[in-house]
Amino acid sequence: MKAIMTSLEPQPSTNRRITLAAHPHGLPVASDFKLVAEPVPRPGQGQVLLRTQFLSLDPYMRNLMDKTGPGYAPPVALGTTMPGGTVSRVIESRHPAYRTGELVLANSGWQDYAVSDGNDLQALGDMARPSLALGALGMPGFTAHIGLLDIGRPKAGETVVVAAATGAVGAMVGQIAKLKGARVVGIAGGADKCRQAVAELGFDACIDRHDPLFAAQLAAACPAGIDVYFENVGGEVLLAVLPLLNIGARMPVCGFVAHYNDAAGSSGANYMPQFLAAILQKRVHVQGFIILDHYGPRFDVFRREMAQWVHSGQIQARESVVDGLENAATALSDLLQGRHAGKVVVRLEA
Amino acid sequence: MKAIMTSLEPQPSTNRRITLAAHPHGLPVASDFKLVAEPVPRPGQGQVLLRTQFLSLDPYMRNLMDKTGPGYAPPVALGTTMPGGTVSRVIESRHPAYRTGELVLANSGWQDYAVSDGNDLQALGDMARPSLALGALGMPGFTAHIGLLDIGRPKAGETVVVAAATGAVGAMVGQIAKLKGARVVGIAGGADKCRQAVAELGFDACIDRHDPLFAAQLAAACPAGIDVYFENVGGEVLLAVLPLLNIGARMPVCGFVAHYNDAAGSSGANYMPQFLAAILQKRVHVQGFIILDHYGPRFDVFRREMAQWVHSGQIQARESVVDGLENAATALSDLLQGRHAGKVVVRLEA
Repeated sequence: MKAIMTSLEPQPSTNRRITLAAHPHGLPVASDFKLVAEPVPRPGQGQVLLRTQFLSLDPYMRNLMDKTGPGYAPPVALGTTMPGGTVSRVIESRHPAYRTGELVLANSGWQDYAVSDGNDLQALGDMARPSLALGALGMPGFTAHIGLLDIGRPKAGETVVVAAATGAVGAMVGQIAKLKGARVVGIAGGADKCRQAVAELGFDACIDRHDPLFAAQLAAACPAGIDVYFENVGGEVLLAVLPLLNIGARMPVCGFVAHYNDAAGSSGANYMPQFLAAILQKRVHVQGFIILDHYGPRFDVFRREMAQWVHSGQIQARESVVDGLENAATALSDLLQGRHAGKVVVRLEA
Repeated sequence: MKAIMTSLEPQPSTNRRITLAAHPHGLPVASDFKLVAEPVPRPGQGQVLLRTQFLSLDPYMRNLMDKTGPGYAPPVALGTTMPGGTVSRVIESRHPAYRTGELVLANSGWQDYAVSDGNDLQALGDMARPSLALGALGMPGFTAHIGLLDIGRPKAGETVVVAAATGAVGAMVGQIAKLKGARVVGIAGGADKCRQAVAELGFDACIDRHDPLFAAQLAAACPAGIDVYFENVGGEVLLAVLPLLNIGARMPVCGFVAHYNDAAGSSGANYMPQFLAAILQKRVHVQGFIILDHYGPRFDVFRREMAQWVHSGQIQARESVVDGLENAATALSDLLQGRHAGKVVVRLEA
């Protein structure tokens, strides 16, 4: 995939953008994307020209690549630029609220440059690590904050389980839960990630979902059952969680990445009866949420709290930084396969 | 099944009781039960002797017959009397709070007589139709009230869908939802039940789940989508509901009778991905509940309100009355197959 994508180097006068060339079957492959080179667009009156510094990569992007979108956001039309949140620098301003040189949170998508009328921008001010606006201090951190605190509502001493434990959202869920006094058990793919979750993120335990004894190990790590299961993967992980749920357990549903690449829809055994039985018998509260619904004053509360936690070192905000727009497609595929740790960002200019 | 069960006629000096002889595989069959005849027990000091008038039959009984119980109540041990709520008459009292001749709500189970120390009894006073204490004014009605009003929270003009529409719980859910101004769409097995749901219970529509066009008909009956789905069946019905759920839909989970008789566990296609996708994309609130948790002051609120609705004719409390303890097993099997309409009670004495 890299070979195709590196055919064009960044040029000051050229905007490279990556468009959706085909709807993927299962995991995205190189031929699902196309790298296009065009002249850098010109900002009109009331607009700014943005240079992308960091592009956020997130699991939801896979959903938007299907012909039929997920409902909460429109699907990406073939031939259009892949969407995505960015940290961008204003390099030319014809807008009174933005000055040349400042950093903003933007939605430029997978491209070097973009023009904006300012409505979707948010000034970032001075940040030591501006890319955190895409991770711990941005959408993934906010997702963890809302899902865990507003829906999961862990009490001190309760057990919180989160999968994709070293991912952008999972790492925040577990660390916030620890700050709230919960016992935190992570689930991750591979022994290295599990070690990281315990050693770097402070989880009480982390279970490797590839281990043949995964379900038994999860049970052993949750001797008092599970009070909050932050659902972001589905599949076999959920199946192992079900028998451990306590009465009155809460299950915020943030995603189910195990199924995102199901080319032919469903697969595997039907465990709906077990799921319904657990919901009923354990009086489980299952609540889906889409983070886009929650911006507004609640975001400011999150932002202040999380900035303090990160600044004080109470929360580790680990990132995987991939250099070069031309590597974004490969990085997304790696992300969907759990090959990264922490928040994945593509650095276009630094 | 009837031939076996009629081998003993009721005798004033004999207590007939039906015990669990074997854990059923799938639907219960005659050999899973045993009819036992014993002398009528004698009440001790502080006890009452009860004569069963009506025995309640409910889907949860099937769950208790499995070797492993459902968790919210202990399984029935082999050789012990099948449990069940009853309307019973005190025929001998050695307890200061109960007088001979009065009717009480009891848990005598599947038998003619029982002794109680009074702790699990509730005086019924004068009721024109005492059997309603097992149905509209009892556990099934309370289940509908809690599930619909506390979890489902339908607003006027919203669409409420309930399956087993003519069953003891479903009929109450739909009628209460109508009183609250909702559009009510029932789902039932067969055209006769569907006609009954509309003509007698006042549902806006009722769809036959056996119809090959069931899913399309359900969609047509819910032009504004579904805001509340009262889940009591699972299976294919739930699958047809999923694409119709509106954003912010509520799904109280009261049961999943379609799976109660799954002898080998799960069966059919795996639609967990669709279920999780709907929960996430539509921000669905799924909440399991066990009605045993909710007794107390909330029951009195329900009881007063429902008694008024039934008395004024705003709610129809239809019953299927089966005569004779010896027919209870067949009646339970029929109930699990949806062969009855309304609340199913066995009349032992009237």
